[in-house]
Formats: sequence, C-alpha cells, structure tokens
Amino acid sequence: MSGAKSVNQQRLWQRHADMAKLGGTPRGGVNRQALSPEDAAARNQLAGWARARGFSVFTDAIGNLFVRREGTDPAAPPVLSGSHMDSQPTGGRFDGMYGVLAAFEALEALEDAGIKTRRPVMAVAWTNEEGSRFQPGAMGSAVFAGTYRLDDMLAQKDWKGVVLKDALADTLKAAPAPMRDGPPGFSVDSYVEAHIEQGPRLENEGKTIGVVTAIQGSRRYIVTIEGEEAHAGTTPRAARKDAYAAATRLAAAMYEATTDEADTLRFTIGRVEVSPGSPNTVPGKVTFTIDMRHPRNEVLEAHEAKLRAIVAGKAAPCPAVIERVTNVAPTDFDPGVIGLVRDKARALGLSNMDMPSGAGHDAMHIAKLCPAGMIFVPCERGISHNEIENATPQDLAAGTQVLVEVLEALANR
Amino acid sequence: MSGAKSVNQQRLWQRHADMAKLGGTPRGGVNRQALSPEDAAARNQLAGWARARGFSVFTDAIGNLFVRREGTDPAAPPVLSGSHMDSQPTGGRFDGMYGVLAAFEALEALEDAGIKTRRPVMAVAWTNEEGSRFQPGAMGSAVFAGTYRLDDMLAQKDWKGVVLKDALADTLKAAPAPMRDGPPGFSVDSYVEAHIEQGPRLENEGKTIGVVTAIQGSRRYIVTIEGEEAHAGTTPRAARKDAYAAATRLAAAMYEATTDEADTLRFTIGRVEVSPGSPNTVPGKVTFTIDMRHPRNEVLEAHEAKLRAIVAGKAAPCPAVIERVTNVAPTDFDPGVIGLVRDKARALGLSNMDMPSGAGHDAMHIAKLCPAGMIFVPCERGISHNEIENATPQDLAAGTQVLVEVLEALANR
Repeated sequence: MSGAKSVNQQRLWQRHADMAKLGGTPRGGVNRQALSPEDAAARNQLAGWARARGFSVFTDAIGNLFVRREGTDPAAPPVLSGSHMDSQPTGGRFDGMYGVLAAFEALEALEDAGIKTRRPVMAVAWTNEEGSRFQPGAMGSAVFAGTYRLDDMLAQKDWKGVVLKDALADTLKAAPAPMRDGPPGFSVDSYVEAHIEQGPRLENEGKTIGVVTAIQGSRRYIVTIEGEEAHAGTTPRAARKDAYAAATRLAAAMYEATTDEADTLRFTIGRVEVSPGSPNTVPGKVTFTIDMRHPRNEVLEAHEAKLRAIVAGKAAPCPAVIERVTNVAPTDFDPGVIGLVRDKARALGLSNMDMPSGAGHDAMHIAKLCPAGMIFVPCERGISHNEIENATPQDLAAGTQVLVEVLEALANR
Repeated sequence: MSGAKSVNQQRLWQRHADMAKLGGTPRGGVNRQALSPEDAAARNQLAGWARARGFSVFTDAIGNLFVRREGTDPAAPPVLSGSHMDSQPTGGRFDGMYGVLAAFEALEALEDAGIKTRRPVMAVAWTNEEGSRFQPGAMGSAVFAGTYRLDDMLAQKDWKGVVLKDALADTLKAAPAPMRDGPPGFSVDSYVEAHIEQGPRLENEGKTIGVVTAIQGSRRYIVTIEGEEAHAGTTPRAARKDAYAAATRLAAAMYEATTDEADTLRFTIGRVEVSPGSPNTVPGKVTFTIDMRHPRNEVLEAHEAKLRAIVAGKAAPCPAVIERVTNVAPTDFDPGVIGLVRDKARALGLSNMDMPSGAGHDAMHIAKLCPAGMIFVPCERGISHNEIENATPQDLAAGTQVLVEVLEALANR
C-alpha cells in the first residue's frame, strides 16, 4: 500500500475537529494565540497523538515542537514538514493547523503503510507564526533559520507586558517535551509545508492542488498629496488645488498601470485619509497606502518605477510624494521540490496549478536553509483570518496524499 | 456732487476698523455671533452713527435693524440695502459687515451730496445670517420674507440651550431701538446687497466689481459603494470586489463629466470614508459626498443625471447607490437691477464682470419679495470665514460707489 492510499481522510478531519475545540469560539473559529494556554493544550494534543504512535517528540529553545519518525539512516538530515498551531484572535480552524496535521497524517500514513524511508521524516509546529500576540510573526521558523536572534525574541512583550520568555516557560511547563540542547536549528534535508490557500484561485479555477512556486515579495508605500482647502461653492476649478481630485488621478493611473494580463501582480489601495473631510470644503490633504506584491522582484521594481512616475507626473497642481515603507523580497521555492509536488499531484490524478503564495509562511524562512516547497489546498471563497474559514475533508486529504508522496520521495533521495 | 463722489473711503474703512473691535480676536478677525453681547454692541454702534446723521432707526420682532433716510415721497416703498453684522466664531471683519457699512455709507454719501430721492433709502442689518449659534442661517431675512415663521425661529435654541427669544430680548435691551409693530416684513421697492466675494475670481481676473447675476443652486449627494473585504496578497484582481477601485472609477468619471468650459459648475468630493481602512485588506465599503452647485437649475438637473448614470454604469462589480440629501434651488436676480449694477460700474470706470454667487446670502430671501441684486468686491485670495479674511479700502469704496448710484437710480424710478 502506498503512502497516499494510507492517508485517512476521516482521521485527518477528526483531528481538525479535536484541535478546533482548543480555543474554539462560538462562531466556529478559534482563538489560540501563541504561547497561550490554548496553544499549550494543542501542543499536548499533538504530542499525545505522536507518542501513541511511537514517534519521538522534542522541542527547542523557541518552543518549536518536533515529531520524528525514524529513518533507516538515523544520521541523515531529516525531511521536515509542518506549519503552525497558533491562530489569529478571531482565526479559523485550518490556517496553519492544516499544515501540522497534514504532516502528522503523513507520518501516520507512512507508518500505516509500513513504509521505511532512508531519512527520518519529521513534523513540526513552529512557534508564533501569526504574530498577533508577540511580534514579529513567523518567529519560530525565523529563529530556527537564524534570521532572528533567539535572545531578541525571548525579550519580546505582548500588549499586556508579558515577556515572551515567561510565556514560553509557562507553555512548556503546561505542555512538557524533551528540550533539544543548544540554540534552535539543525541540519535539514528539505522542507515541505501544506497550507490552505487563503485566496480564491484554486476554488475559482476548480483545482485541488496548488503547486506553490514562490512566496511573492511585498512592498508597501504611503502617498501624500498636499492641496489647498477652499470653499466648495465659490472656488472655480481652475483656482483649486484639490487634493482628492489629484488623488483620484493618481489612483486611476495606478490601477491601470498595475493591470497585468496574467493577473499576478497584487495592487491594493487599502487606507485613504481625506482632510479636512467636510462636504463643502475642497480637500487640502490626502494620504493613501499602497500594498503591492509579486513573486518576482524585478516586476515589483518595474512597477514601483511606474508608481513613482505617476506621482511625479499626474498630481499637479498639488505637490505629491510616494514613500516606500516596507520591502520584503520574494522567496523562490526549490525547482526540485516544486517539480516533485507537481509530479505527485499528477500521478495521483489530482487537478493542479502552479501558483505563488500571496501570504507569507514559515516556509519562507526555512527555504534559506534547504530545498523547500509548499502545497496549497482550496479554502471556501478564499476567506481566511476569519472564524468562518472553511475547507473540505476531501481537499485536505488530497493535499496530504501529495504531501506524503513528496516526503517519501525526498526521504529516499 | 454725485453720490458716488461723496463716498468717503477713509470713513468707510474706519467704520470697519471700529466694528472689528466689537468681538475682535487676537488674530485680527471677529467672533461676533448672532444675538451675543458683541452683536448688541455692533447694533448700538450702527444706531449711534445713524442717529448722529439724523436718520431714523427701528427694529422688528426678529431683531432686524433698519436705518431710514427719508424720501420726498415718504409713503413710497423704500429701496433697501444691507447685509448682516453677525460673524462665524472665527470670522473675518468684512463678511456681512461690509454690506451693512456700504449701505450706511451710501446713505451718508447721499446726505453729504445733498441728493434727494423720491423713495426712502434704507440700510438694514439682518439678524443671524451665519447660523453658527442659532440654526438656520439667513434667519432675519427669511422671516422678513415670510419663508420662516417668526414663532418657530423665536423657539430655536443654541448649543447651550439658550432660547433665541431670550437672547433676542437681551440683545434689544442692550441695544434698544423703536420696535416696528406687527410681524416682520413690509413693502419694499427693491433690494441691493454688497458683499465681499468670498471666492478668488475677481482677484484672479483683476476685476473690481462683481455684477452678481444669481445665487447658485446647490445639491448634495452621498455615494455608497459596497465591495467585499479580501486579502491584499492572495486575492487576484479578477476575484476582487474592490470598493475603492470602483470609487476611483466613479470619481474620475464624475470629475470629467463636471468639467465645463466656462468653469461655472462647482463639483467637490469633500468627505471620503474607506472601510475597513487596513493597508493589506481590499476595501469592502466606500462612501463619499458630492457638493455640486450651479446658477441654473437645468444644468444641475442635467449633471445629476450624468452622476446617476456614472454610478449605475461604472461601479460594477460593486453595487453602488447615489442619494441626494439636499437640493437648494438657484436664485436669479432681477435683470433690471443686474443691468443697473453693470451700467453704474461701467459709468464709474470700474472693471467688472458678471458672476453668480457661490455662497448663500440674505438677498436670496429678499429676492422673493422684490427686484433684487448684489454687488461683489474682491477679497484677498478668496479667503472668508477665516480670521485672516481681507479686502482693500479702495475696493470697498468702489463697491460702495456703485451701490450708491444704483440705490439713487432705484429710488427715483
């Protein structure tokens, strides 16, 4: 029996239901923020399931929780798969948790099928991916990858002033697991993360598997336009410096300049402030934010140049400036892992499409350490970070079937 | 000597300076709200000047203050001129006050020139034009014209709960004048109001006299666009219902559709609310206000139809509605009075231009009673309702020269 055939859809779905009780909300979502008692309960749940199957469990100094299924060559760097178990304050039951449970189901499926792998295969639940209680997010994977310093992270405080180090100690006391000595991080052969898409593309295109090629880069900007307040009844158009009329010219030109045929570039004006905001006063000042994302840095660069040209050319008679406030580079996943995901999905007869990830994930940090990739499954209407987040048992199982086949292949390379 | 030649620029300017002390602010403006002690002081000042020239003074039941220079036919309906003496909380020294002092200067100039007129010529200070303390504004002229009921107005309260009737009684006690019996309003032959433009057109075009042809109509609208909140990173353009992208299409089309060659139509988007206002969330809802004004009702009607067509045609895929929340019809001034103002300005060698008034004035109510018109003079950079409001002694005198000539002509018709 193959690993994929041993994936147990009912068991996987039930594990989601069990985990959803830990921090469950009346509306069907979860509030299981990082290093909370609910997070500890989830850790205990996962560790209990793992021990029941004879897998070893350990944690590290930032609280990442590992489950290990031994390989025939215990000294070989393991193949790793997982995601996170913490949630947004009004989060859904699949975001992150699916990647952890899919990895664990993969371990169980390999076990059920009696498949031996050369490399160990491990599941991981990274600490604090959401970043809603302690900043920054994707913390556990970033510390594991050496991107953030452990001591800096341990000193972080939540909004109540609780120090992360203390919250972590409480969590590990409530959910004890053997501690791996030394700083987080060890040699890993490869990494694959399963996740709900958190967007509508798979659903809209009727595909079951998203072959994730990259995590797109994102840049954020603030545009500020200075006009002159004037009486709406008495001031002729020619005498106005109407900051909102200028903002409209800029926004219209920007929407047009960022319309790519492939619909890959993401361009959003999300926050707009118009001052003084009186119906009969010509606006004297407008600010708006731009969020722009694309898997390729050179495309972001080219479109940033277009935005700058629009601000320079179309705001007159109002002075306008555009300021870049963040710039996160894209993550390109490993062609070998991407190819494996695509091939295994095809071999399983699952409809699939290549796609970048719109959101950030732990995989972007681990991709700096080793060949990495991701597998997406559809979520209902693309809705995530929301208590009504939903996915089907069939799609979750299908993604896990691809995952176990990919992990097996990687573990026997 | 003509009435115009008898206009005393220095006296007129000094009277503005004297009045500016009553409620004067450190920044050079005035805070002389309706029926305040400062308003009473201004009434006493005007009445004192009037009595010193032998003019009769009286008030009416809403507190309008009249100064009468007798005609050779005392029974003939008088020619009336004036404006208001109340100000915004942070108002300027010319808004309203200029029209009262120009009318009074006209009476003095006629007196100084020894000119007899068949009809009496009267100056008036209308009660509560600004409407900043007691609502609605242009109250005294509206009660005089029968547009508002006296009893309704006497029952109005300011934000502290002071009843207008009591504030009026206190004012008339502090600034006593003979009370005309009966409800406000009497037969008037014609009405001419001088005012600073409160806009930049005269200054920009280098003209001294604005021949006011109308007070433009104004309509106000609220546009509401319903989109769908979505993740800025994961949601393709084709799957978005971006309320702000739709709002931008509507606004861009509206700015274009309201661009008239003569630059007479006033179109302003002054208040814009974008929800939820998060930089990385596609906006789910946008509302914005429209303020549209024009001297001709049919032009407003035609452009309203254009706005409605734009909302119906360009918001897809977002549902959008436009709601009209106010509709104030234009006031057309009397062609005879308009012609007189234009002719007298020309005869005096004063540069002039026909123009509508962008703001509302007491004249819009009195125009329902009798032939009426207005004379505008420039104000610096068009700024009004502001303590830095400014005008030149020369322009104020020039407007008064036109006024006295017009009043004399009307009084001898």
